[in-house]
This record gives sequence, structure tokens and C-alpha cells, in this order.
Amino acid sequence: MAATPTPADKFTFGLWTIGYNGADPFGGPTRPHLDTVHAVEKLAELGAYGLTFHDDDLFAFGSTDAERQHEIDRLKGALSATGLVVPMITTNLFSQPVFKDGGFTSNDRAVRRFALRKVLRNLDLAAELGATTFVMWGGREGAEYDAAKDIRSALSRYKEAVDLLSQYVLDKGYDIRFAIEPKPNEPRGDILLPTLGHALAFINSLEHPELVGLNPEVGHEQMAGLNFASGIAQALYHGKLFHIDLNGQRGIKYDQDLVFGHGDLHNAFALVDLLENGGVNGGPSYDGPRHFDYKPSRTEDETGVWDSAAANMRTYLLLKERAAAFRADPEVQEALKASKVAELAQPTLAEGEGYEQLLADDSAWNLDTGAYLGGKGFGFVRLQQLATEHLMGAR
Amino acid sequence: MAATPTPADKFTFGLWTIGYNGADPFGGPTRPHLDTVHAVEKLAELGAYGLTFHDDDLFAFGSTDAERQHEIDRLKGALSATGLVVPMITTNLFSQPVFKDGGFTSNDRAVRRFALRKVLRNLDLAAELGATTFVMWGGREGAEYDAAKDIRSALSRYKEAVDLLSQYVLDKGYDIRFAIEPKPNEPRGDILLPTLGHALAFINSLEHPELVGLNPEVGHEQMAGLNFASGIAQALYHGKLFHIDLNGQRGIKYDQDLVFGHGDLHNAFALVDLLENGGVNGGPSYDGPRHFDYKPSRTEDETGVWDSAAANMRTYLLLKERAAAFRADPEVQEALKASKVAELAQPTLAEGEGYEQLLADDSAWNLDTGAYLGGKGFGFVRLQQLATEHLMGAR
Amino acid sequence: MAATPTPADKFTFGLWTIGYNGADPFGGPTRPHLDTVHAVEKLAELGAYGLTFHDDDLFAFGSTDAERQHEIDRLKGALSATGLVVPMITTNLFSQPVFKDGGFTSNDRAVRRFALRKVLRNLDLAAELGATTFVMWGGREGAEYDAAKDIRSALSRYKEAVDLLSQYVLDKGYDIRFAIEPKPNEPRGDILLPTLGHALAFINSLEHPELVGLNPEVGHEQMAGLNFASGIAQALYHGKLFHIDLNGQRGIKYDQDLVFGHGDLHNAFALVDLLENGGVNGGPSYDGPRHFDYKPSRTEDETGVWDSAAANMRTYLLLKERAAAFRADPEVQEALKASKVAELAQPTLAEGEGYEQLLADDSAWNLDTGAYLGGKGFGFVRLQQLATEHLMGAR
Amino acid sequence: MAATPTPADKFTFGLWTIGYNGADPFGGPTRPHLDTVHAVEKLAELGAYGLTFHDDDLFAFGSTDAERQHEIDRLKGALSATGLVVPMITTNLFSQPVFKDGGFTSNDRAVRRFALRKVLRNLDLAAELGATTFVMWGGREGAEYDAAKDIRSALSRYKEAVDLLSQYVLDKGYDIRFAIEPKPNEPRGDILLPTLGHALAFINSLEHPELVGLNPEVGHEQMAGLNFASGIAQALYHGKLFHIDLNGQRGIKYDQDLVFGHGDLHNAFALVDLLENGGVNGGPSYDGPRHFDYKPSRTEDETGVWDSAAANMRTYLLLKERAAAFRADPEVQEALKASKVAELAQPTLAEGEGYEQLLADDSAWNLDTGAYLGGKGFGFVRLQQLATEHLMGAR
Repeated sequence: MAATPTPADKFTFGLWTIGYNGADPFGGPTRPHLDTVHAVEKLAELGAYGLTFHDDDLFAFGSTDAERQHEIDRLKGALSATGLVVPMITTNLFSQPVFKDGGFTSNDRAVRRFALRKVLRNLDLAAELGATTFVMWGGREGAEYDAAKDIRSALSRYKEAVDLLSQYVLDKGYDIRFAIEPKPNEPRGDILLPTLGHALAFINSLEHPELVGLNPEVGHEQMAGLNFASGIAQALYHGKLFHIDLNGQRGIKYDQDLVFGHGDLHNAFALVDLLENGGVNGGPSYDGPRHFDYKPSRTEDETGVWDSAAANMRTYLLLKERAAAFRADPEVQEALKASKVAELAQPTLAEGEGYEQLLADDSAWNLDTGAYLGGKGFGFVRLQQLATEHLMGAR
Repeated sequence: MAATPTPADKFTFGLWTIGYNGADPFGGPTRPHLDTVHAVEKLAELGAYGLTFHDDDLFAFGSTDAERQHEIDRLKGALSATGLVVPMITTNLFSQPVFKDGGFTSNDRAVRRFALRKVLRNLDLAAELGATTFVMWGGREGAEYDAAKDIRSALSRYKEAVDLLSQYVLDKGYDIRFAIEPKPNEPRGDILLPTLGHALAFINSLEHPELVGLNPEVGHEQMAGLNFASGIAQALYHGKLFHIDLNGQRGIKYDQDLVFGHGDLHNAFALVDLLENGGVNGGPSYDGPRHFDYKPSRTEDETGVWDSAAANMRTYLLLKERAAAFRADPEVQEALKASKVAELAQPTLAEGEGYEQLLADDSAWNLDTGAYLGGKGFGFVRLQQLATEHLMGAR
Repeated sequence: MAATPTPADKFTFGLWTIGYNGADPFGGPTRPHLDTVHAVEKLAELGAYGLTFHDDDLFAFGSTDAERQHEIDRLKGALSATGLVVPMITTNLFSQPVFKDGGFTSNDRAVRRFALRKVLRNLDLAAELGATTFVMWGGREGAEYDAAKDIRSALSRYKEAVDLLSQYVLDKGYDIRFAIEPKPNEPRGDILLPTLGHALAFINSLEHPELVGLNPEVGHEQMAGLNFASGIAQALYHGKLFHIDLNGQRGIKYDQDLVFGHGDLHNAFALVDLLENGGVNGGPSYDGPRHFDYKPSRTEDETGVWDSAAANMRTYLLLKERAAAFRADPEVQEALKASKVAELAQPTLAEGEGYEQLLADDSAWNLDTGAYLGGKGFGFVRLQQLATEHLMGAR
Repeated sequence: MAATPTPADKFTFGLWTIGYNGADPFGGPTRPHLDTVHAVEKLAELGAYGLTFHDDDLFAFGSTDAERQHEIDRLKGALSATGLVVPMITTNLFSQPVFKDGGFTSNDRAVRRFALRKVLRNLDLAAELGATTFVMWGGREGAEYDAAKDIRSALSRYKEAVDLLSQYVLDKGYDIRFAIEPKPNEPRGDILLPTLGHALAFINSLEHPELVGLNPEVGHEQMAGLNFASGIAQALYHGKLFHIDLNGQRGIKYDQDLVFGHGDLHNAFALVDLLENGGVNGGPSYDGPRHFDYKPSRTEDETGVWDSAAANMRTYLLLKERAAAFRADPEVQEALKASKVAELAQPTLAEGEGYEQLLADDSAWNLDTGAYLGGKGFGFVRLQQLATEHLMGAR
């Protein structure tokens, strides 16, 4: 049976997740506003480690300075009382009408300047609260129609924004790194930087790429039909997994934000195995918060909110247990060997070998290629069945 | 631990599944031809119940009568020796160039006549072998371009074909029912009767709808992003689940034909629960063959073929065990009650009530709709978490 | 140049379409409330034929009788002043918290009874306004989790509801037919009757199937990757195209509700060709309203609302012109012949022929199948290129 | 009317495209082998500029040196006779059984060494034929099952391969650049570097990133639901559009390889507009070959092959004409201005401005955000309608 969550597990929740009121494109709220202090207390009870939020989650857009400070103070009080931390915050550049064509890449320059001001202000708050990750989800940066958006200019403006913010963080001496969160579409027809690959590429065009990494979300990559665990592995290859958003998605459709594990369970297993056991020497490959960015279903009342929050953590811990058992099983180890999985870590070239030596190696060219017809099977299906049975707790 | 498969489990396999040679759009075979007798013997060893096939799987297209009979006789011998049965056969109207625009609905009338002859001949073989289900997968019935195919005419020709075949079966006194297998696309850009819904609707336009039902395939519905278990429930509602094709698919993409359970595991669990526990009084809702229509991955040699065949059966049995435990768990029963799942089986109208009585019932109209804001949660997430934990063997 | 829209073109708009305020899952309204009378006047100016609405579009949920009547009277005044008609109305069973698990198929029986009352009341209004089509979009009838919804019970409850409503219409003598609008998902994870095929099948299980048909929506079928024009052709085959929702969708993603023609343009061309030229003798195959169920993009202000309304009609008329030119082009006629498109309308069997005669026809079996390898090409690509060039106005 | 294609248009075709024999997962060839010399002659007749090929397209895998040379000589003769050039070649690392788990990233190290040898040999041929682009499509580099492939090791091996090949090209003084062709899936369940974004990111990890760019294919990005024109714009932003594969795809499904323009026509229009008019000063943004990587439909005979080849070029030229007219239309220019499309090219910061100045600019923070509710519409729908009408030749 999986252990009970504790802060050591580093589970964090967005204030907008448990606070989601149930509104969707075809209906209004089914739940009243959730008070921040109450939310922090409940999360602490459930064993969470931290809370995250957008500026507009904590204090309404257009709040006076006093209103804003009042909400910040209430949050600080609750954090102090419960021990919860705020490891990440982010800025809402997508809900208000002013952002209807985006923030950093709105065609309207005045909006872009306003957006930068909103983010700069929020960076100060991040520093004040000790958040070390600053997420940027550019959900409104995009277009429905090709002629309406000059994508190269949009990327240049996005770069201009991130470069300025990076300089600000450096000059202020803030201990903050940025994490871009990609998404392919919704609410825009097509969103800029639609996958983690596009975002990784973009980061390389920045002034301070070392300050900028990724915050990939399970459902966002799966909305493009992509393998999330594979994408995370590529992010790790590039050293850019700065933060992660865990949730569930059932295929290519609208953004579902289900509980982690209530979507593609095989891939959730592979992901937890990668995060927990995929390091160079088999340990964790990621040590940051396990952040849940999900929505309690609109059918639920507050009981369902906390049940779903607990479900996220419990499923993660169950998958962690099963992934550990999978790696420890001698039959799995034997099957991995038969499938030559570790052989891929061995360089293709011998020590010191270059193309001259390779070209001189007749055995390389005279490979018995015929032996691969009807022979030399990789045993991948057996391996997948072992994974399936471990996932199902059947071994 | 799941029981070992036995013929009582009614697991059947297509000859083309274990016999798949690995050819795909970007590569040739990776495995040699699999002999029919050997295949039957191996399936018997593994605990299978039966074998199914297309005519062209057993004897090559264009075989002489003697060649054809030779292969039939070899198959009969193997069946007799092993006890395996042939509960279903089907006709290949898609591989040969002559069927490049389909069989029953080719624009070329001569092809349609030839296709009917090929199927009539195969019906006689079905009867001879005792098969009671005759599957029709119209994989080439479709189009890439809208102007190229008059869909209403295509449906009329499809109906003409099925009506003729039904009359033949009736006149011959064959104990055979037809099962249409829908698919949305691949190999055609769009296939006629793309989902089980479209096929159910079509059946109602036939002369003998009672003779025709469905053979839905997991991956085919999932290629359209549809919930397979829900689709099967609708097929059962209409009394049309005549046969079923089990396999795995990982989202909307090419037809993967993975091992059952190696795709969407949650939906596989729901499906087995429906088949095994979803009858009116909680028993099985379907008693036909559990037919695997999958492909051993191209990376595998013959060892992988049999490992994968065994994996299909083992996963089914594991899911069956977990579904039984799920239904038996008192906490699940309590959660189902809280979610009012059974209340949906209760008619909305009282006994003898019509619209007059409903209109006279003030309490119906004066429902406290406000109570549903912030209250009267359905507890669906908790229920899903219980299902997830049972699926993972964690309860 | 396409003609200006006139009421003879039968273009209709939902009040919720032009009245869409821009709210979406990630942002609030970007446009204020649109007054009904103003909307009717503007539509009339643009050449529309009619207006449609949900009850809650015209008068807010929970309105007093007086408030409700006031809004109805204002609408009637505007209709009378402009000549616009209301050929269809529909009921909102999805926005309020009470419908969070659906209306006709909510697990909560009290909700189901309330939903029936809401619809019965709206049927009286439909009759009063002369609407002859009553649409039922069951957007909340569905589930996110398989264990939460007994699909067979849900279908039984849906049937119970439609049977009762049908009886009511019959007894009252209303000149009203029902049209079910399928959708695969959003706002529910999976919606009951996900495609037009599933809905067609369901209709056959009703007490009065003759009263119930379809209201298919372009984007809803395309969200499942299905060919909309082909689906409409099947609806026509079954005599069930009672109404149609035109809009645009760019692939499998959230429900976009773009302007008609701003999505899949090839399929829009095929659809208009089918509606306008696809009748048995080449005339229209459908004579009902051309109803636009779209959303003016959230980036637009009121100018954009009316520009987008006009764009829907203009694109339809342009496609109608091009479809007429396509059918009239002698080269297209020759290409259609070469592709044997009309040959599919010819029965496969000769007059009076049955299976005995077919089996006696040696020429049917002795088809030169080899001739189809490297020969007997269907010329479909040439036909599609001709369609493309007509669509592009290049011939 | 569009001009006839000439070599100046730089249209090129893969030998495997016109030579596609019609085999697919459910059927064998429908066309015989197409002779290389005949293919070159026909392409020249149609106005093409060049031919491209995989090694195994020209000479069968396992050919003797003499057989290989014979085919090369025949090709050279045909090129010389017709004036066609070979601007790109590529290597087949996916069809043979030896590559069943990939080439550069097979778990089997001996296969990886063989693959490198095959590519090195083909690089010499590329140089000999004057090809300056060397495409790498890693269609078999991937997996079906997460446990079967260590993605980080796979990326390291991929890098090792490309680094070695880059060094070879540099040392040999070849005028050759590499172009990676991404694809999300098919024939593998998930392919390494699934989108152009992932490939762009990967390139930045190489020893010689300047030698490596992209060869994006229309259908491959669209199989992930991504906007192809937007992706190309990002490739241009990074200076990495080294080559391009044009074809057609109808949504998220198997790889269709339709004629260019027979898929998403709106996006094809946007793409041609970007390639031809999207340069910094409005000229072409790309001057390389317009390469068609498509498949003549399996329903066609050789007539259909050449009809389809011609259709690709003709549609491109028609789109080019319409894109020019779109850009020249004063109403479009006015609409673009109203939509502030060019304003996005203007930096957000003023000349010399940094965050201090921005923070000191009160007007930036005191933006009248309320004006964006019900006002300041972007006019994007009008712009899209103008694009639609130009695409349809209706203006």
C-alpha cells in the first residue's frame, strides 16, 4: 500500500486548480469561490508541500494596492501557519479582454508594454515569496487565422520580452529561473511554441538561455498526440526540465486537466519511472516539485475537490512503488538485457574511433543483415507485458 | 494471480494476427510465413479456443481448387488434432489490385459482381467449418476524394450485397450471422460506415436486420477518439454485439493493433467489466468469443509472436479478476450509490405516468436548482480513483 | 461574383452565435450582451432568413413569467418588423449547475424530471412561434469516467424522454419534428451519441422514429476526424437530415465554431455540392434552413460579429456558384465518367437477378483480375484536381 | 490562369513518390516497377527541375557494386539527356529487417555501425551527383513501448551519428548540408524528434549545428495537429529551413501523402504565401527546391501517376498567383493595417529602452484596459474572409 503523502514528496498545487469553480465553454460555475487560506489549510492537511498561483488568482485583476497587499498578507499568514511554501508563481496574461490577442505577442504594442509591466510586478512578488521558478504559459499567444499573425515577429517579440525579464532578474539578483509551458491550441486555434520541442528550440535563441527552461504539462503534449514521457526525456537531455505539470488527458481533444493517472495510465507509469528511476545512476532524474495542474471535475462539490487533490498524490505514490518494483524484478532485468536496452547507452563508435576506423572495419559493413529476417527479435512485447503487469500490481 | 487461459475462456485469434509477417508501409517482412498447422498447434498449447481467418489467409488468392482444398484439409486436420474450433471466418476484399476501389462498393460494377462471388464461396466454407459468425470488414469501401464516391449509391450497393448474402444464408439454412466491422480510415482516406454507430444505423436499412450485427474493434473506434466501452454498451443496447475484436491502440494515429491492454488501459478495464459484469443482473453481457485482432510488433521474431499471443489472454484475465474485485468492494458499492449510478436505471417517469401527470407534479418543476451550486456533488472522481486503484491491484 | 444573400437562401443564425460574448475556459467576456431586437434587425439587414435560440438565450434561467413574456414579445415585435422567422428552437439543458451531469440522462432522477418539464414548456413556445424543428443537443449527457455512467441505462432514459416528447407533440397536434445534434466530447469527456451514426442508430429504437431526425454540425463530426459530407450523405440515405449546423473546424481539437469555410474548405465544397446538386435528379438534396452555428472570434468587437455573420453567407454562396460550375464543366463530366462515379448508382445485380443467376454467370467469377495491376486506374486524382481548381475559381 | 511549370520553379520529386507501387498495410502493389530513366524523362516533360532518391530506390539493397554502378550510370545518362538535377539525396534506414529497431538509434550496436556505413557511402554518392542537401528521415528511430527505448541514450546516439557525418563532410570538403525530417509516428508508435520543434532543439546539441537544418513535411506536422505554415515560420526564425517536403494530409490519421493542396487548402495557401512573399522585404523567404514527397493514390495507374505529379505543380503555381493577388489587394492591405499585423514587427521597447524606462513610463501601466471589452476588435475574421476569397479566386 502506498505511503501517505508528506511534504518530502514535494507535491504542489495551483491555487487555480483546487479553486476551479467549474465554469466551462457551455456552463457557469458549479462551485463558489474557494478562500485562499482555507485552501492552504486543506492542502497542508492532505500532505502537500506547496502552493502556486497566478497573480489574478490571489487578487482580482484591477485590485487596488491595498486589496492586493491584503490578499498577499493573508496568504503569508496561512503559509506561515501550515509550513507550506510557494516554489513557483506565474502571471495571468490571458483572461482579461486586454489580452484577447495575447500578452507578449499581441499585435497591439500597447498591450505588450502593459503585459511586461504586469510580469515585472509579479517577478517582485515571486522574489518576495521565495519562489524560484517563474512559469510562463502563453495561452493567448497565437492565432486562429494564418494571415492575422506574423509568426516570426511574434517569436521576436517573445524573445524581446524574455530577454528583458531575464536581465531584470539578473540585475535584481533574484534566485529565479523561467519555465515556459507549451500548449498546441485552446484557447487559440494555434498557440505559439505548441510543443516542448518548439519551446526548447526557442530558448536557444535567447540572450540568457541558461535562465530559461520548460514547464511541460502532461495533457498539453498529449493534445498533440505526443508521448509525454519521451518528451520529458528530451527535456532532460537538454538539461531543461525546470518544473513539471502533472495531470490526465484522454487523447486528442479539448484540454481535460483530469487527475494524474486518470488519463493515459501506461504513460503515467513511464513518466514516474523516468522521474524517479531514470537518473544516470538509476536515481531520480528530477528533484523539483511534483506540481498538479488539474481541474476537479465540474460535477463535484467541495468534497470532490479534496478527494481529487488526494487522488493525484496517491496515484503518483502508487506508480512510484510499482516503478520501483518493476526495476527490481530480476525477470524485468533479464528482459531489458534481452531487448538490449542498455546497449543503446554504449557509444556506437569505440573509444577513439572516428570515421576512418569505422570505414576500415570490414565487420561493420559485412553485418549478416539476413539474420534479422525471422531472427534477432527484440523482445519488446514481452517487456511491455512485464511493465503492464507491474503497473497492474500483478507481479 | 490470473488463471491460465483455457478454451472455456473462449479466446480466439485471427490466422492473420499471429501470421503477420511484419510488412508495413515503410518496410518489408521481418518474419517468414507461418504455417497454419503449426499456428493451430501453438494456439492450442497456449490455451486458446479457436482460430479465425480470411479466405486468402488460408489459401493464396488465385489458388486452384486443389490447392485450396489441400489447405482446408490441413486446417481441418489440425483442428481435429487440437480441439480448436473456427467460430468465425471472413473474406478478403481489400488486398488484391482488383479491389483497389473496394469490393461491394467499387465504382466498377464487374468488381462488385466478382466480390459477391468471392463472398458467396466463402460462406459455403464458413458453413462447412461450422463458423456461426461471418465478419465483413469493408476496409477498401471508401474514398480519398469526395467527388470520387457517391456515398448514397455506395450505401445502396452495400445494402444490395448484404441483402443478397442474407437471402443466401436463409435459403441454405446456414446457422450464420453477419457482423460488420467499422473503421474510420486507413487504408482509405475515409471508409464507409466509419464507426459502430454508422454501422448500426445502416443495419436498420437492410432486408434482414436480424441477421446482421457488429464486430467492433477496440482500435478502430479509438482511431476516431471514441470511447470503446461506451460504444460497446450502445451495441448491447441495440442487441447487436455479435462478435468483438480486442487489441490496443495508443490514441488517434495509424492502426496499431497492439496487444489488448497495451493501449488505453482504463478503457480496457471498463470494457472487460462491461463484458463480464455488465449484464442485466450483473453477469456477462456477452458470451461470444473474445477475439484478438492484433499484430505482433514488427521488431519481434517468432518467440515474440507467441509471447504476444499469451500476453493478450493474460491481460484479459487479469482485468477480469480486477473487475470482479472492483464490483465486490463494499467501498465501491457505497461510492456507486453516492454517485447515483443505479438511479439512472430507474425510469424518469413513475409507473403509469405520462406527460399530463408530470405536468401536474409541481415538485418536478419546483426543484431547488440552486442546491446544485456548491452542493449535490456526484462524487465521480472518487469513483474513478477507486477504479484506478483496483486496476492497479492496489486495493 | 456571388449574389448577395436574400431570405430565399434560407440562411439562419442562432441568437447564441452572434450573441456569443467571447467567454471561454481561459477568459471572460470580451463583448457586452447583444440585445435580441438589435440582433434581429442586423440579421435582416444582412439578408438572413431566420433566427433560432435556446430558451435561456432569450430569457435568463429563472426568469419570472412576466420577464419571460416580455422577452418573447420583444422578439415577436422584431420578427414582425423585419420579416425574419423562427424555424427552429432548442432547450438549454447544459449551462446551469443543476444540469452538471446532464438533463435527460443525469444520474439524478429529480434533475431528469425537471429537464423534461423545461423541454415541454419550450415545445409550447416552439409551436407558438411556428418553429417546425426542435433541436436537442445533449452536450452534458455523458461522462468523464466509465464507472460513473451506465450507458445502456442512459440510452433508455434518453429514449424515455424522446418518446414522451414525441407523444406530447402528436397529442397536441404540433407541426414539429425533433433533430438530435451529436457531438463526440466537450464539455463532457465523452458525450452520449457521439456521432451522427450513433444518433441515427438510436433513433431506430424510439417509439416514433418518424418524428426524429438529425441536426449534424460540421465541427462536431470533424472533432472525431470524420468526413462531414460523407456523414450528411448517410443521413440523407436514411431520410434523416432534418436540419444542419454549418461552421468551420480546423481538425481534431476543441470545438472551434469558426465561420463556415474557414475550416476544411475541400469538405465545405463537397458539402455544398451535395446539398445543392446532390439530389436524385441533380437538384438540391435538402431544402431546410442553412443554419450557422458558429462563434465570432473572441478577438472581435461588434463590427467583427457582423462581418463574420456576413462571411458565413458569402462563403456559402461562393461555394454554391463553384459547385454549379464544377457540375457543368464538360471536362469534369468526362472525368466523372472515366472514374465510373455514376456506375455505382447502377445495381450490381441485373434486373431480376438473384444469387442463383449470379452464381451461374461464369463471366462474373472469371474476371480478369490481373488487368487491375498496372491498369484500370480510376482517375480519382485527376477528378480531385478538377474539384480543387473549381474550388479555387481557376477554371 | 497559372503558368506552366518550368525548371525555374525548382519543382523536384522523389523517385519513391512517382515510383510508389501502391502497396500499403492492407494490400500489395497495384502498379509495376517504374523505370528510373523513364521517370526522369516524364518529369522533364512535365517541367520539373530535379529528382531525389534514397539509395535503395535507385539500386536494390544488397546490390553488387556493378549493379549499383549500372543504375547510377543510367540515372546520370538520363539527367544529362534531360537537364534534370539531383539537389538532394537520402538514405533508406527503415525498410530492411536489419533496421527493424532503427538505424542510428537501434538498441543493437552492430546495426548502428552498419547504418553509419550505409550513410557514409551514400554521402559520397551525394557529392558525386552534386546534391547539396542530404535528408535524414529517422522513421524507424523510435519505439512502441516506453520501457523498450532509453530516449536520452537514443538522442546521444543520434548526436554521435550526426557529429561523425558532419566531420566527414567537413573533412572531405563536400558542399553538403544535412536536413532532418521529423515525423510524430508511423511506422513506429512514437518516433524520435516527433515535430520540427523537437528537431530544432536537437540540432542545438550537435557539434556542428551550422551544418544541420530541417526538411519539414506538410503531412508530418499535420499528423500531430500542428499548423505547418507556423512551424515553417519558426524554422525560418531559426534560419533552419534547408529543404521542404510538400504534400497533402486530411487531419490526424495515417500518413496520407496526398497531392499538395488536396489536404488542408487554407494552410497550403498560407504556406505558399510565406515561402513566396514572406521574406523580410516581402520577397521569397526560401529559395530551395519545392520538393513533392507524396504518393499517387493506389487506385491509379500510370496515367494517374503523371496526372498527380502535374497536379502538385499546378496547385503550387495557382496558390502562388493567389497569394500575390492577396498581398497586392488594397483592401487586404487596409485590413492588415486594421488588424495591426505589421505592428508586431515593431519592437515592444522603444529604441534604447530597458526595463527601467519601461517601469518609469506611467502610460504603459495605466493602459485603458476596459476599452478592450466591447471595443478595439482586431478584425481578424474579416482578414480571414479576404484570404478565403482570394484563395477561391473570388476577388
